Amino acid sequence: MRITGRARLFAIIGDPVGVVRSPEWWNAEFARAGMDAAFLPVEVAAGDLAVAWRGLMRIRNLDGVVLTMPHKQAVVPLLAALGPMARLAGAVNTVRRRADGGWEGEMFDGEGFVAGLRAAGHEPAGMRALQVGCGGAGRAIAFALARAGVASLALSDVAPGRAGALAAAVAAAFPGCAVATGLADPAGHGLVVNATPLGLRPGDAVPVDPGRLSPGQVVADVIPKPERTPLLDAAAAAGCDTVSGRAMFEGQARLAAAFLGLAELGG
Amino acid sequence: MRITGRARLFAIIGDPVGVVRSPEWWNAEFARAGMDAAFLPVEVAAGDLAVAWRGLMRIRNLDGVVLTMPHKQAVVPLLAALGPMARLAGAVNTVRRRADGGWEGEMFDGEGFVAGLRAAGHEPAGMRALQVGCGGAGRAIAFALARAGVASLALSDVAPGRAGALAAAVAAAFPGCAVATGLADPAGHGLVVNATPLGLRPGDAVPVDPGRLSPGQVVADVIPKPERTPLLDAAAAAGCDTVSGRAMFEGQARLAAAFLGLAELGG
Repeated sequence: MRITGRARLFAIIGDPVGVVRSPEWWNAEFARAGMDAAFLPVEVAAGDLAVAWRGLMRIRNLDGVVLTMPHKQAVVPLLAALGPMARLAGAVNTVRRRADGGWEGEMFDGEGFVAGLRAAGHEPAGMRALQVGCGGAGRAIAFALARAGVASLALSDVAPGRAGALAAAVAAAFPGCAVATGLADPAGHGLVVNATPLGLRPGDAVPVDPGRLSPGQVVADVIPKPERTPLLDAAAAAGCDTVSGRAMFEGQARLAAAFLGLAELGG
Repeated sequence: MRITGRARLFAIIGDPVGVVRSPEWWNAEFARAGMDAAFLPVEVAAGDLAVAWRGLMRIRNLDGVVLTMPHKQAVVPLLAALGPMARLAGAVNTVRRRADGGWEGEMFDGEGFVAGLRAAGHEPAGMRALQVGCGGAGRAIAFALARAGVASLALSDVAPGRAGALAAAVAAAFPGCAVATGLADPAGHGLVVNATPLGLRPGDAVPVDPGRLSPGQVVADVIPKPERTPLLDAAAAAGCDTVSGRAMFEGQARLAAAFLGLAELGG
């Protein structure tokens, strides 16, 4: 790894940012590609995003930014343009500088999640899916699952109204997908997705009742670290196939790299 | 070298920033010390400093900033506190976060330059010195040379009035030093210092007439890259001892690291 005065910079902005694993993936890829570049963790509190963003955008050698919790929706009004998936999700996870100097955001959480499922051998098309958590990443995943052709999508969230609002938006965009809302009961679903932050911190509750899991179900988690969450441990114990946040992370990172003009990364 | 989500960040802000060698020195030292930390080049135009600064200060894992041209004087009004050398020089090259959250600046260009002279075997005390260039770094070096006990200090600058203003300030702070202003004529001076940017870019003019150099003089340059400037080449050809910007850079980097609580670096 090499960082000189001519290094190009990339950053992930989040709070807390210590849990992200992007810097290790990107910097290893930069080293492998022999690039003079660095990918930095940048911790900014939710209330500081607008001021921090205005400042960061003045850095001439900053070529791209990845957004994580809690900034994926808050960054949207700060951008000059949004890609199609970001417009659907109302959230952004990757931002690049356009030739005209404006900043353009796109959302790869959902497509990255689906890419991770497929890399693990699970094709979502035709599946009955339950997704718990309808926040920034959850919105992107719901649209991507519907686009990938799940037969049905049940959405659940602890915040009143959030699941319903997302269900209505997904149903409007993908009329062929049977979208419903309700309790986080995994029984009867071929695919169970945790898109909540539960599992990020030690002692977090499990987002679905492990007693309602059964062999043959696919249980996928978005939590990047720890890679084995209590949900995935319980699902494995119940005979389910599990897909960790690592698979989603790698799918998303490759898509983000291509968007930033670095398609050689992750190859 | 290791940069994870928990990395502590340090940056050098300048324009152009591609010429700085700090990232290589600091990142090699972080790697040697086994620290999860990175030192980044950050290119910000002069007119963008205030907005960029406000944003950068919201980054919770940013622990220190080094300033280079053209920001060393412009950053002063953006800080909560100044150290004693920064107050004398009216310029700052290193900024740290204080325990109360405010940012404190100090200036190590002058002390680093003197440390570099001494490391090269040249004790400035008692010398007759000529310094060309009275900008941000030049101000700091003039005060440091006077503090180190040069017998006399001749100051020269292309900007009318800048040499005179600095001469008056140095004479007031160090009444024992004979300070004068005038042409950039090196004849008769034991120590000749280039503190202008000349030599940074290919084709730059030489800041003093090489025909007026003679064997036994010490000629020191502040330009960090290229390490061998046309001035130093001409001085060596004239039989002078030369001290490159590398010596100043290493002296300054060690002092800045200690100020940032990283005294283990550069040891």
